[in-house]
Amino acid sequence: MLSTVSKIHNQGKALEFPQSEGLLGDCMLKYGHELGEDSTFGGALIDMGKAMKLMAEVKESFDINVKETFIDPLQLVHDEDLREIAHHLRRLEGRRLDYDYKRRRVGKIPDDEITQAMEKFEESKDMAERSMFNFLENDVEQVSQLAQFVQAALDYHQQSADILQLLQRKLRVRIAAASSLSRNNFRPQPLRRCPSALNVSAASSSRSKGEMPALGP
Amino acid sequence: MLSTVSKIHNQGKALEFPQSEGLLGDCMLKYGHELGEDSTFGGALIDMGKAMKLMAEVKESFDINVKETFIDPLQLVHDEDLREIAHHLRRLEGRRLDYDYKRRRVGKIPDDEITQAMEKFEESKDMAERSMFNFLENDVEQVSQLAQFVQAALDYHQQSADILQLLQRKLRVRIAAASSLSRNNFRPQPLRRCPSALNVSAASSSRSKGEMPALGP
Repeated sequence: MLSTVSKIHNQGKALEFPQSEGLLGDCMLKYGHELGEDSTFGGALIDMGKAMKLMAEVKESFDINVKETFIDPLQLVHDEDLREIAHHLRRLEGRRLDYDYKRRRVGKIPDDEITQAMEKFEESKDMAERSMFNFLENDVEQVSQLAQFVQAALDYHQQSADILQLLQRKLRVRIAAASSLSRNNFRPQPLRRCPSALNVSAASSSRSKGEMPALGP
Repeated sequence: MLSTVSKIHNQGKALEFPQSEGLLGDCMLKYGHELGEDSTFGGALIDMGKAMKLMAEVKESFDINVKETFIDPLQLVHDEDLREIAHHLRRLEGRRLDYDYKRRRVGKIPDDEITQAMEKFEESKDMAERSMFNFLENDVEQVSQLAQFVQAALDYHQQSADILQLLQRKLRVRIAAASSLSRNNFRPQPLRRCPSALNVSAASSSRSKGEMPALGP
């Protein structure tokens, strides 16, 4: 689990990493403004771009929240509690080997020395067991940490859904408004003819005369 | 916008790319089972692992949905409508240059030729304007595509929130159950003493006698 944790942890550090929602939002705002706020599609792109930027902020604060309330405490558990258990287990193993060696040499070495080795072994066994027991007894604490992570994720998804719901209503209004407009027919704009071409254009101006008078002088 | 679209498009192709929720879920399931379903923390990890796997599925179907209902049609607009407009604009430019050149040579070249160049220019101008006009008249269609994307994103966030809400209730039940249990005190297990060490251990067995009788023979 720890390699995954450290991967998440590293991502947590790179909080300036751009959110994909933000990139999409920037893009929609840029081309929405280029199309113009007055056009239905341009206005819709701007609406959506703003919503995407907002969603990027929500995701950013979710990232920060999870790092502070879940990943950092988990890292602490790893660096302190689990390291302490590992330390006790290593010492236990050394004392077990020592006791085992001396136990098999009963009669050859003083009884006192064997008793001492056994006591040390027993002491280490107690400490290792106690540290693991205490860690496992902390289950309420650990499950609460998980619950906090779940709460942060839930907030993130609910806030994103709220933003999208509002956006959806705006887009529906735009679609309804655009649908109710009578479609324009394409009206070609005749050329503005410059004076030097007038004598020529007179021959063919009948083509566009039906549509609109020539705008040129 | 198109470079971004193609980036999204390529991601759409790599649909087998593992979702981070799924990786986290696998990890939680693995270590949850190692800790044991009976332990509060192990059970909570399994609950959460299952929920994460479910969220990965929801995200996966969101990816597929967006690719099919939004990115593919957008790509089509790019490949067909916008390409057609670009084609008309290129041809218009060529005809404008031709007409411009001939117009300035009135008297030096036959009037017929100038009239023809102008008519061709006017025809191209009509076609380019008409293709752009038709594209912009499609705004209801385009905004509807955006709305479909928003709907897919909304579904994704709402479904994720539903899964998390259910998970949150499960974790709360586990926390409440674990909190209501009276905390156990640590009871060190005395060593099983092997017969060869009995003569030695007798000297120190008083230490653990208070807790539990020695289990050795």
